[in-house]
This record gives sequence, structure tokens and C-alpha cells, in this order.
Amino acid sequence: MNNKVYEQLDPNKLENYLYSIPSVNDYLEIKRGVLVEEIGDGNLNFVYKVVSKINKNKAVIVKQSVPYLRMAGEAWPLSKSRMRYEIRALKLYNELVPEFVPKVHHSDEDMSVIVMQYLDSQSVLRYGMMKGEYYPDISKKIGTFLAQTLFETSFLGMESMQRRALMSQFVLNDELCKLTEDFIFTFPYMNHESNSINPITEKYVENSLRNDSEYKLSILRHKEMFLTKTDALVHGDLHTGSLMVSKDDAYVIDTEFAFFGPFGFDLGKIVANFLLNYISHFNTGNKEYQEWVLCQSMAIFKEFEKQFLTKWDEQDESSLLTHGYCNKEELDTYKKDMMVKIFQDSIGFCACSLARRSIGIAGVADIRSIADIETRAALEIKALRLSKLLMSKQSSLNKVDELEEVIRNYFAGKEYPENEVHQ
Amino acid sequence: MNNKVYEQLDPNKLENYLYSIPSVNDYLEIKRGVLVEEIGDGNLNFVYKVVSKINKNKAVIVKQSVPYLRMAGEAWPLSKSRMRYEIRALKLYNELVPEFVPKVHHSDEDMSVIVMQYLDSQSVLRYGMMKGEYYPDISKKIGTFLAQTLFETSFLGMESMQRRALMSQFVLNDELCKLTEDFIFTFPYMNHESNSINPITEKYVENSLRNDSEYKLSILRHKEMFLTKTDALVHGDLHTGSLMVSKDDAYVIDTEFAFFGPFGFDLGKIVANFLLNYISHFNTGNKEYQEWVLCQSMAIFKEFEKQFLTKWDEQDESSLLTHGYCNKEELDTYKKDMMVKIFQDSIGFCACSLARRSIGIAGVADIRSIADIETRAALEIKALRLSKLLMSKQSSLNKVDELEEVIRNYFAGKEYPENEVHQ
Repeated sequence: MNNKVYEQLDPNKLENYLYSIPSVNDYLEIKRGVLVEEIGDGNLNFVYKVVSKINKNKAVIVKQSVPYLRMAGEAWPLSKSRMRYEIRALKLYNELVPEFVPKVHHSDEDMSVIVMQYLDSQSVLRYGMMKGEYYPDISKKIGTFLAQTLFETSFLGMESMQRRALMSQFVLNDELCKLTEDFIFTFPYMNHESNSINPITEKYVENSLRNDSEYKLSILRHKEMFLTKTDALVHGDLHTGSLMVSKDDAYVIDTEFAFFGPFGFDLGKIVANFLLNYISHFNTGNKEYQEWVLCQSMAIFKEFEKQFLTKWDEQDESSLLTHGYCNKEELDTYKKDMMVKIFQDSIGFCACSLARRSIGIAGVADIRSIADIETRAALEIKALRLSKLLMSKQSSLNKVDELEEVIRNYFAGKEYPENEVHQ
Repeated sequence: MNNKVYEQLDPNKLENYLYSIPSVNDYLEIKRGVLVEEIGDGNLNFVYKVVSKINKNKAVIVKQSVPYLRMAGEAWPLSKSRMRYEIRALKLYNELVPEFVPKVHHSDEDMSVIVMQYLDSQSVLRYGMMKGEYYPDISKKIGTFLAQTLFETSFLGMESMQRRALMSQFVLNDELCKLTEDFIFTFPYMNHESNSINPITEKYVENSLRNDSEYKLSILRHKEMFLTKTDALVHGDLHTGSLMVSKDDAYVIDTEFAFFGPFGFDLGKIVANFLLNYISHFNTGNKEYQEWVLCQSMAIFKEFEKQFLTKWDEQDESSLLTHGYCNKEELDTYKKDMMVKIFQDSIGFCACSLARRSIGIAGVADIRSIADIETRAALEIKALRLSKLLMSKQSSLNKVDELEEVIRNYFAGKEYPENEVHQ
């Protein structure tokens, strides 16, 4: 049944399908019975949890994409080939960073199916952060994941021809790239039916965001970078909802947006999600938690940079570098410039995420779940103003501490976007 | 015989092969006899001219790549797949700019064969320029070719998913990209056996080029751009030897290096070749011709920019732009910034070409053919110093006229690279 033509699975067919895969069958002992439970992300794919009846500790997750947008039904076609890229990225991450991703038991691109480790006792980082839960070392884990995956798949970690071979595995992930181009970099900044704007927030958007030419052109420059810069294989959708965590572990999931893009993209997105959580806690009044979130978000940058540079120190030859081309001083200069560039780009991508999560189709539950629209609007505008501020400061910020100062001053009311009065 | 498994052709097999292709057979009337003549570029591929015996005006060029470097023999393997990219690019150019490329009669990726128009009464631009021949409107033709091909295959001329599909057709042109990475961006600036350095020039290279950290890091930044920036399908090897010209026409050939790269790459290379020709005419003393060459080289930039912007004015929607995102003023700002960026990048790529053509494995006949090594060294050093000067000025030059002034001052002895005294 392996690598057959596509067939959409249901719980019955699923059992037969898993039975045909020796490794999965051995693990679950399917003949002795399994429990199949649809758990689903619900929006795009079918997701099942399959548990061995004779050993409840043995379970797998089975994810299958269908050739339409599941939440909208068959009338909304969406290529099931997205699963191809989820499989490819997750398998690569299994090699590069096995400690940070679910183990892949089996994958089948033709069937658009992946069978992977069930992450017992892990929960979604976003919901934990909404409740004010602390996760020791979360910044270290995220920073490590990013440094490892970005470096190892980049022109600094790979030889030129290997790298182009890997690029060819992801270049056709076109549909999901297009979603990002539209929903992160375009629609939120213009009048578009897909946006979801709180009516109270709308006035600010009209007067201060969509009229700000410099801001919009900065967004456009980042869209151009997203379209054209192939630094490394990026996760493409790294937010607090795509991290499964416990106090001890962190697992990155949902790799279907993976493609070769700019270094700063994942970094910017995940930090934006931390900052949005920070903003949401103005509503709970949990200042202590805000402090923790801000420190963690800045520590992601620091951890990333430290580990990225450590890896670089160990790598003498790559697509970019040939032993003997540079002396140590020259290389150090190049490294320093590169880290500043990645940092500044990620601040820009962070600004894009802050905005689109506040007014675009996909909000964050941290803020969108707040029922009172006036309370919510205040937080949304706080996020939008921070987006503008960061975008305008981006190219003058060279260090994490400088960024932290800007953000702290902003939340303290001591710093605000250009052309806007203190509010 | 079409699309069969690969077989290396010889003149006899070639005749049978062409006979099996109806369109070519009809054109040449092969049964009535053809003359097969090997003409060859000699270095990489086999190239034949095939002429109809009953009508000498009917001729085609047949080019086949072999799985080794032809000039070195079978012991030097080189994937014949390079022909795949030559075919794909040339067929695309046949659609985009049919007036500037030989017509493709037939192509066969499996056989690594392309059958194309024989360019009667055209000669290689480089050799014409070495003899001081004038070609009216050559800059206009080159600028037009570049504007059309770069715009139409870029994120400004293509819709996002179409563009990624086209990228997937070229992403695996890895071997020839690697040649560029090594021979244009790396080896010339370090001690490497592949270099070909005039002993008199060598001292300058050691003292003033390879010790210049800023210069070397600038080269490295351009290598990074070459590795990571996928603005458009670039020709990849556009120099005066890959242009076949007459007084009336110009044809671009040798498209096997085509890949998705930075906008400025082709522009920089072709302009560098014009400037190298300019420098070579210090030896002939043909000042009038030098003046023409310099004007033409600057006119390439101007023509490119004019036509690129004209195409952009006609294109409302693309991967980057969505109707309604920008107002006209905003878009004009973005366009202006983009044209400056392309211009500055191309000056940088021009600087790389000037250097590698002077000391790397592949010189230009304009200068390398000069027998007297002292005369030659003087010209090589002139080119190297210009390379350094342009690299250092690059980011401060916003307009073609500013570049022209720098170059004129340099040749007049009024401007020279930083850290170097006037020589």
C-alpha cells in the first residue's frame, strides 16, 4: 500500500493503511487493536491520533492533506501537494534537529500522508502563554532550532551543488508561499475583503497605517526579500501555535510552509508572536509575565546569534567561503555585518507579523479571543504602532539591547512612531 | 529518434539524426544531400554547421554537449545536462525576444542537442570590437535584450506561482553556477592554481588587490548575492563573445549558464567587457573608438533602465505588486530605489568581471592576445585598478552620468582607487 496513488483515508481505511507499514505496524501492534481518534487542526488537513489498545503509551499522529481547504469544503481547492513539503522539511529536521521535532515514523508523498510521533504531555505554546505559563529555556530552544536549521541549510553550511539540490526540493512550494505573500505582505495594508479588522481599530488603520507611505514601502521591500532571497530553508510559519511544549521540551510542528527564504523570516515571526503575547497581558495585568516574555523574546535573538556564529566557526568551507580566501579579521568583519543584516531583516519581518496578526485574516488568539472590542482595539493599536515604530527604527538598530530599549521605551510611553503624537 | 537515450553524434550519425526530425528535414531536404562541417566552440561542446547541398542559403547549427570537458577529454567529467539549460533558456528567449536570439528549430534534452538558426553574416562582437568596428545601436540592442528578458522573468513581470514554476526549470543548473562562483568570485582574489597571471601583473595583485580587505569583502558580498538573490532569469554569461553581430543585428548565444540570479549580473558583465575593450585600445591608440566604446557601455545602462521602466509601467500586477497596494507616488519611489539598487549591483558585478578577466583562468582576447607582456601588464593593472575604484565607489553612484564621470576621470588620471597613489 506504500506509495500508492492518492486515496483519502477515513478511520477504517487508515487502520488498513497503517497495517501495511511494517515499522508502524510493529510499533502499534495493529492486529491487537488500535483506537483511532480524529483530532485535527481542522482547517487544512485531517489529523488522527492512533493509539495501541494493548499499550496506551504507544501512539502516533497521522496527518493527511486533502485537495481542498478542509474548513471550506471541496469547493475551495487547495493542492494537497503541501504535504510533500511538510514531509520533506520534517524529515530533514529529523536529521538536523531531532530533539526539536516529532519523529517521522513513515511518510508517503503520493498519499499526502505523514505518520509521526504523538507528542504526549505537550501543549501548544500559544495557549500556555495566554495562561501565563513559564517555560524554562524556551528562548534557548527556539534560538537553537533556528540557528541549527538555518545555518545548516544555508550557503554558509552547505556546499554549492548540494544546496541547489536541496533548493530544488522546495522551490515548487508555490501555493503556500503565495498565501504568505498575500496575507502577510499585501492584504492587511490595503482595503481587502480578507482582512478582519475590529471596527474601532479601523480608524487607526485608515489614518495612520495605510496612509504611511514609508511604512508601506518598507513592507513591500520585505515582500521583495521574501520573494527573492534564498538564504536558507526556513520553516515559513514559525509562531507560538506551531510549537508544542512542556516544561522540559519544545517541538516544532507544521512544516508545510517550508521553502528557501531569507534568514530573518522565522526569527521575525516568532518574536512578533512573543510580543503580541506581551501586549495581550496588558489585559490580564500580569506584569511579571510580560517581563518574562520580553526577556525571552530578546533572548531568542541572542541565542540564535551565539549558536549561528558557533556553527560558522566550525565551518571552513561552504557555498560562500573557500578556505584561504579571507583571513580571520576579514571573516570576522563579514560575520559581524551578516549578523547585523539578519537582525535588522528579522525586525522588519517582525513588524510585518505584528500588523498582519492585528488586522489580517489570521489573528492571534492571545488578542482576538478578547471579547470586549474596545479593550481589544487598544491592544491591536498598540501592536500596530509597535509595528510602525520597529519598521522605522529597523535599519538603525544593530544590537539586541538597542531593540530592547526601544521596545521598553515604547511600552513605557517614552517612544512612539514618527509622525504620531504620544497616545 | 526524437528524445531517445543519449548518444554522442558524429557527422554520419548527425545526418541520420537530422533526417528523423521532420521540420529540420523539410528545411534542409537532407535526402538531396547536406554538408556537415564541425565548427565548434571547441572548449565544451561539439558544434556543427549543416548546409543543404541544393540550397546553400539553408543551413543550421547543431550543438551537442558531451559528458566531459571537451578541451580536456573524457578524463574531465562535466555533466552534459548543461545543454538542458541552454535549451530551456534559448526556447524562452525565442518567445520573449525572438529578434535577439537564433531561432530554435529543434531541441532534445535527452540527447543534449539543439538545432538552431545558422547566423549567416554575423560575427562575434568581441573580435569586431578588437578590430575597432562600429556597430550602430549595439547598446540599444543589448539594453533592450536585458530589459525584456530580466523584466519578463522577474517578480515584477511574472505572477508568483508561474515564476516559481519557471525557477524550478533552472534551479538545478548547479555545475555552471559553481563555475561562476569559483572563477568569477573566488579564485582570482586568492592564490589558486587556476589563475593565469602575467608575472609583471602579479606584484600588483599581491600588494594591492589581495591585501585589500574591503575590496575582497565586497567581492564576497557579490558572491553572496549571486548565490542567494533570485530576481530574474539571467543569461549568466553575457559578454562580447556571446554576442553575434552585424551592422544591423545582434544575437545573443550560449545560454547554458542561465539561472535565477540578481538583476545586475548580466548588466555588469557585459559592461565590463566593453570597458576591457576600451582599455585594450590604449594599445592600438584608437582614441576615437575608445570614445565610442565608453559611450555605448554607458548607453547600455540607460537603455536598460528606460525599457525596464517602460515595461514596469505597463504591468500592474505581479508577484510583488497588487493593484491598489500603492498609489502612484509610492510606486514611483519604489521604482526609483529599485533602479538605483540594480545600477549599483551591476557596477559591483562589473568590478568582479574586470578583475577576473585580467587575472583569472578566462581572460579576454582583447587584452590576452597582446604578446608583449609589459604592454599587457599595464593594461591588466589598469583594469584591476578600475575594478577597485568601481567597487569602492559603487554605493555612492546613483546615476549613469556619475559613473561615466568617475570612469573618465580615472582614465584621465584624475581619479584613482583609495589607498593607492596616482600611477
